Order: sequence, then structure tokens, then C-alpha cells
Amino acid sequence: MGKSSLKIGLLGLGTVGSGVPLLLKENKDKISNVTGMDVSISKCLVLDTASKKDFADEYGIELTTNYQDILDDDEIQVVVELIGGIEPAKTFILQALERGKHVVTANKDLLAQYGLTLVRTAQKHACDLYFEASVAGGIPILRTIANSLAADRITSIYGIVNGTTNYMLTKMTNDQLTYDEALAKAQKLGFAESDPTNDVDGIDAAYKMVILTQFSFGMSITIDDIVTKGIRGLKLEDIEMADTLGYAIKLIGSSESYDDSVAAEVGPVLIPKDHPLAGVQNEMNAVFIKSHGVGESMYYGPGAGAKPTATSVVSDIITIAKNLKMGTTGHVFNGFTSDVRLTKPEHIYAKYYFSLEVPDKHGVFLKLTESMTRTGVSFEQIVQEKVDDGRARIVIITHEMSRLQADEVKKTFAASEDITLNACYKVL
Amino acid sequence: MGKSSLKIGLLGLGTVGSGVPLLLKENKDKISNVTGMDVSISKCLVLDTASKKDFADEYGIELTTNYQDILDDDEIQVVVELIGGIEPAKTFILQALERGKHVVTANKDLLAQYGLTLVRTAQKHACDLYFEASVAGGIPILRTIANSLAADRITSIYGIVNGTTNYMLTKMTNDQLTYDEALAKAQKLGFAESDPTNDVDGIDAAYKMVILTQFSFGMSITIDDIVTKGIRGLKLEDIEMADTLGYAIKLIGSSESYDDSVAAEVGPVLIPKDHPLAGVQNEMNAVFIKSHGVGESMYYGPGAGAKPTATSVVSDIITIAKNLKMGTTGHVFNGFTSDVRLTKPEHIYAKYYFSLEVPDKHGVFLKLTESMTRTGVSFEQIVQEKVDDGRARIVIITHEMSRLQADEVKKTFAASEDITLNACYKVL
Repeated sequence: MGKSSLKIGLLGLGTVGSGVPLLLKENKDKISNVTGMDVSISKCLVLDTASKKDFADEYGIELTTNYQDILDDDEIQVVVELIGGIEPAKTFILQALERGKHVVTANKDLLAQYGLTLVRTAQKHACDLYFEASVAGGIPILRTIANSLAADRITSIYGIVNGTTNYMLTKMTNDQLTYDEALAKAQKLGFAESDPTNDVDGIDAAYKMVILTQFSFGMSITIDDIVTKGIRGLKLEDIEMADTLGYAIKLIGSSESYDDSVAAEVGPVLIPKDHPLAGVQNEMNAVFIKSHGVGESMYYGPGAGAKPTATSVVSDIITIAKNLKMGTTGHVFNGFTSDVRLTKPEHIYAKYYFSLEVPDKHGVFLKLTESMTRTGVSFEQIVQEKVDDGRARIVIITHEMSRLQADEVKKTFAASEDITLNACYKVL
Repeated sequence: MGKSSLKIGLLGLGTVGSGVPLLLKENKDKISNVTGMDVSISKCLVLDTASKKDFADEYGIELTTNYQDILDDDEIQVVVELIGGIEPAKTFILQALERGKHVVTANKDLLAQYGLTLVRTAQKHACDLYFEASVAGGIPILRTIANSLAADRITSIYGIVNGTTNYMLTKMTNDQLTYDEALAKAQKLGFAESDPTNDVDGIDAAYKMVILTQFSFGMSITIDDIVTKGIRGLKLEDIEMADTLGYAIKLIGSSESYDDSVAAEVGPVLIPKDHPLAGVQNEMNAVFIKSHGVGESMYYGPGAGAKPTATSVVSDIITIAKNLKMGTTGHVFNGFTSDVRLTKPEHIYAKYYFSLEVPDKHGVFLKLTESMTRTGVSFEQIVQEKVDDGRARIVIITHEMSRLQADEVKKTFAASEDITLNACYKVL
């Protein structure tokens, strides 16, 4: 008796896209063993068929430049979108769902901005919509949160979810590169694009935190709800000072619950060196979760790359194949919804790292501590060192204070003639 | 319209057992939201009802000392076994499955020894059998391997899967405690039992590697197939020497594939300090996976403890509730089976650490290197230092060699009058 077959329409045959037929072939027996189906790509949408012809022939894929060919093919039950960006990806996915085709996508920008529309359309047409590869590439973090932590209550989630900036920070820390040198190196190795804005300004990380916050807290937020700061211009001297004080600086996306509210943020954070996140090196990603039941857990792996991302895409395809076999398609990826608000700045607490420059003269330090103490700030560590031209550098790690207090302190510094605030980061 | 309800029979109300009704209550809304069911413990089997009466009353649980009361209760669809050990747990689980009740268990000893019998009985009666809590407590590692890595091919898996020994090794490394001091401390804190054999001799880790090997390679092995060495008597001097050479010593359970064979082992291993496993501290567990698709990934969390373990148990219960809702019970937890053999010793390759004591006299070192070179061993690092009474200590890290070669080298040392082999560990 022949096995039933599952035909897939693939949109895009770039580096990740071409990994999908490869993995399906490499793991053919295992996938057939687990799903009871023969899974294969039958058609692929590309911009230019000529350059992809040899590849397509090798895998028995029919190429097309017209999406309608895939939409109209009733044998195709699953559409895998790997072209990225908002349009035409959004229209293509909506059209597929409306035609009753299940969808797998790795498109974090689209999910972060139009996730709710996509999810509702999928539900309306009883279709599956999976997007494991959209966050932290090869780490099965969304499925883990959705399935295994369903019995648990997450209280906070901290992610190194952008490989490019983690690579840059690792090089700055280990090889004493400056920000510009580290960026140039990342660009040379293909980790960073020629316009690195999305990475270095924390936008890519913020997109991923939109999705992670949805899965962790059942809460729909938009990228505007996430206070986002990148690593652009981060100074080597701050990395070195953090190192001296026992910390590594990482670009952290965080979502923390306070009673029935959640605060989401992206920014450089000082991580104690004995914390598992501090050891996450180079372009690797990791998501650290605190929860009532499990306590502390961490999920570590490659955040990008053709093969890891394609592996997550194929695991989504396998999930759909299993659902088809069992007749259980149409259930949302993350069934957890909850009615939570954003935390107000006066209720978001953290320790802070301030790096200041002041004139090296009598009374300035007193003035500084007076103004900070007035806003209710207390100090955990203070380092003062001389720099050039009669200026001194003062680095302070505070005890916990609210974001409102931190903003007030920053305003005081900005209004002061003597004090220059060079950096202000959170401390985990 | 009322929600459907799922009644559970719980066997054992110890520390983990009592965590289950607690978590079900704490996460009542979320669980009901995700499963569409009200899930609760209706009956609990205990040895003595009097001491548990207050607790049972609080959670509306009926206590019994007769298992037949649970078996005969047709409302009970799921039995959760948390009494541990082989009997009566094995009989209780088999009886439950034969009566068509789904089973959740955390019993690694039982699964490692009789897993195949249990799985076959579950299949025969179209019942679910889940056991996420049996390996690495709060880490959802089995579900991750079964679901998310289905699209991937694991090539090796390295686990810190015993919290007691990892706590002891951490204390020896960080606080320079001897083995005996570290064991006493672990016993005082309740991490180690008064008879620590199962932990320190690697038996507990080996049970877990039986289950992990089954999930990773689709291969049924028994504990006798795992070459098992514990940390009993491990010397502080070896931890310090490893530290000097850039390594941490961890008790590692490993399963590595070589072509179409697999080698499983438990023993102390030198881990390079920049490897993610080296940073796993105290009683925490972690499983590091190498695979074709994802590359390197690691899953980190608490390996034991009432709440983490109960969380994994409840996540299994939720999976069953979902399966019931969708009518998809009776599928095996790990659907992947494969026909692989055990790797022969001559094909298992690793670097080795040897710690030797030799007389500090002319020609001994030459003799040593001659005898090692004869068996084809080459050296990566050598340290020689003087000890007391005209004895010298020589520590060698070799290049890769087969286990057969390593065994031969050990035999040569044993036959030598001059050389005492104090320690021999693998190097990652």
C-alpha cells in the first residue's frame, strides 16, 4: 500500500528556501516514519526560473514566476513562505489561507506587525499557521513555550535573539575591538548587512520580542509597546568597565510580568558573568525563562543560518503533516490568550549602570550623589577614575529603582553643566 | 454550557506528588484555556490516609490505600504514577493501561528497564504513555527531541543529567572541597541520599541516557549497553589540573553516532571552559545536542525538585487532555525507531586525560612515552610536576584515539612496576 503524500508550494528559493528541499530529502525516511507521509516540494515560486533550474530539476520541483500556479494547484496543501518582508508575502499568505492551504513562514517582520490578522484568517479557514523559525532560528522556543510550559506560569523572559549584535559584542569583549571594527568584521563575514540598522538599533530583536511576549504572556503587543534601544555606538570602555565589575554586556530583549501587567524592552544589559546568558558567545542565540513551576530554564542554539532555519521550517511542516493525519488542523499555534496591560514606568524596577564624565574638581562628586539621592537612588558600586584634561569618569551601579526614577536621574544629568552622561544600561 | 472535565488518579503524594494538585490549581485558568477542559485529581493512592487528610481535603481529593478503587473508577481517564521504583509501580501502570487509562510517569528506573513493555502495552490498548519528567526534571527535552528535532538528524547528545553529582563537582571546583566534603555537603542539603550509590556511580545518569538514546537515535538499548563510570573518589587535584589546562570536569552522559552505530557512555569528562556545558553550575542540568540541521543547541534547567518535576508531569497531563479533545490518543511519545547497533570499541574515538604517578628518576619519562607511542597514541598537552618522596606526577592530554587503544594503554600502565595510573577521563 502506498503512503499518502503531502505536496508543498514553496515561496522563495534563497539560502533558507533551498535548505528546505535538501532537509526533506536528507530526512526522508525519518519524516515518513514519524508522519506516515511522503512530504515533498512540488512547486516553487521564484523571480527568475533560469538561475534555479538545475537545483529544481535535482529535487523534482516545478518552478513558476506566477503565484496563481501554486494557489490553483489543489494538490498543494501547504504553502511555505520564505520571501520575507511585508508585501507581497502578506497577500500571498492570506490568499493561501483563504484557499484552505496551511501556511509555514519564518517572516518575523510580518508576524510582529500583522500577526493577529494572519492568525484570525487561519482560524476562519480552519488552517494551520506555524512560524517556529521566526524567532531564534534553530531553537524550538515557540513550540516549547506553547506545549511544555503550558502547565507553568512564565514570570519573565530574557532573550539574546539577534545573532549579529551578539557576535559584535563578543568580539568587542574578547578581542577588544571597537564598535566600528566589530561592525566591519560582522559585515565582512556576512552576519551584518550593509545597512545594519535593523540589527544594531534593536529593531530585529524587538520584532522577535513581540512574538515571544505573545507566546509567554498570551498578550498582543505591537513593536511600539517595546522600549527599544540598540547597541549603536556602544563604547569599548563600557564593556571593559562592566568586565571589571563582573558583568558581560549583552543586547537583551526582555518581557517581565508585574502582577497583571507586562513590560517589554530591548537594550544593552549588564549580565553577571556566572549567569548562563553571559556565556552565550558569537552569533548564538539563547532564551532564558523564569517561571513559577520550572524555575529557571534556558534554550540555546543558532539564531540564524540556512540549515537551522530550514530545520525549524521542516519541523513546522511535520507538525502540519501529523495534524492532517490525525484530522486536527486549524488549532492556533499558541492557544494562550490573556488580558494583560503594559506596566507603567513607575512600576518597572531594575538596577542601572551609569557612566558619567565630570570635571575633576572639589565638590562635584558630592553634588552628583546629592542629586541622585534626592530622587531616591541608592548605590551598589561606585568607581571613579581620572581621564584626560582634568575630567574624571564615574561609573555607578545602583540598587533597584523604577524606570520613572531612572528617567528623572537622566534629566537631572542632562540639565547639569558639569555632568555628561555617557551611558545608561540596565543591570540584570 | 459546562466544560468537559478530566479526572486523574494520582499514585503517591510525596514531594513531587503533592506538587501536581497544587500546579493544577495554580494554573487552572490557563490549563482550561488551552485544553478546553477542567482538569483535576479526584483520587489519590497513599500508604497512610491519616497524615495526608488535611492536604487532600483542601484539594477535594479522595484518598485510598487500595489501588483497585482507582482502577475501578470509570471516571478516571488518566493515572499519574509518582511512587517510583520497579514494583508495585510496574504492575500498577500495566493494569491502568489494560483498563484503557492513559498514564503519566516520572519513573526513570522503570522506563529504562521495562520501557519497551510499557510502550507496547500502551499501544495495544490505544493509550497515551508520557514520561517527560523522567529525564532532566523541568527541562522539556523529550518532547523537544520528539517534536522539534523530527526534521533533523542528531549526531551526538551530551547531558549533565544528574544534579547531585553536578552540585558536588561545582563545589569541588569553586570552593576547593574534597570529594568527601562535597558529598557531605550535598547530603546535608538533601541533594544526595544517605546511600549515594545511584548518583555518584553514574547509575541514575545511565538510566536517563537509556531514555535519551531511545529518543535521539530511535534505538532500544539497556543500561548494560552503557559504559558507566561515576565520580566516586574523583580527586580535587584532577579538578585543579583540568582547571589549569582550561577545562571543567563534569559527569557527562553521552550518546554518539558513528555511521549506523551508536556509543553510549557515562563518566567524568573534561569540558573546555568556553563550552556551554562547562558553565552549568550546582544542581542544574543541561542537555547539549549536535545535529545535522540545527547544528549545536542546548537545553538548560533544573533536573529535579518538586515543582519543576510536577510541571513536567502536568505538561504531560495537558498533552493527554488535548489528545482526548482531538481524539488522537494512543500515539507513542517517540514515534522514531531505527535499526542501529552499538559501536565497537575500536571505532569509538575521543581525546583522553591521563594522570600518572612515576618515580622521579632518569629514563622513566622516556619509557612512558615509548610505550604510549607504540600503541599509536600522540600527545596534545603534557605537564610534569614533582610530588613527594621522589615521585613525579605526569598529566597527559592525548589526541584522539579509539577506546580500544585507551584500554590497551591502561593495561600497559597496570603491568608497569613504575607507573601508577591515578585517573583516566575523556576530553570533549
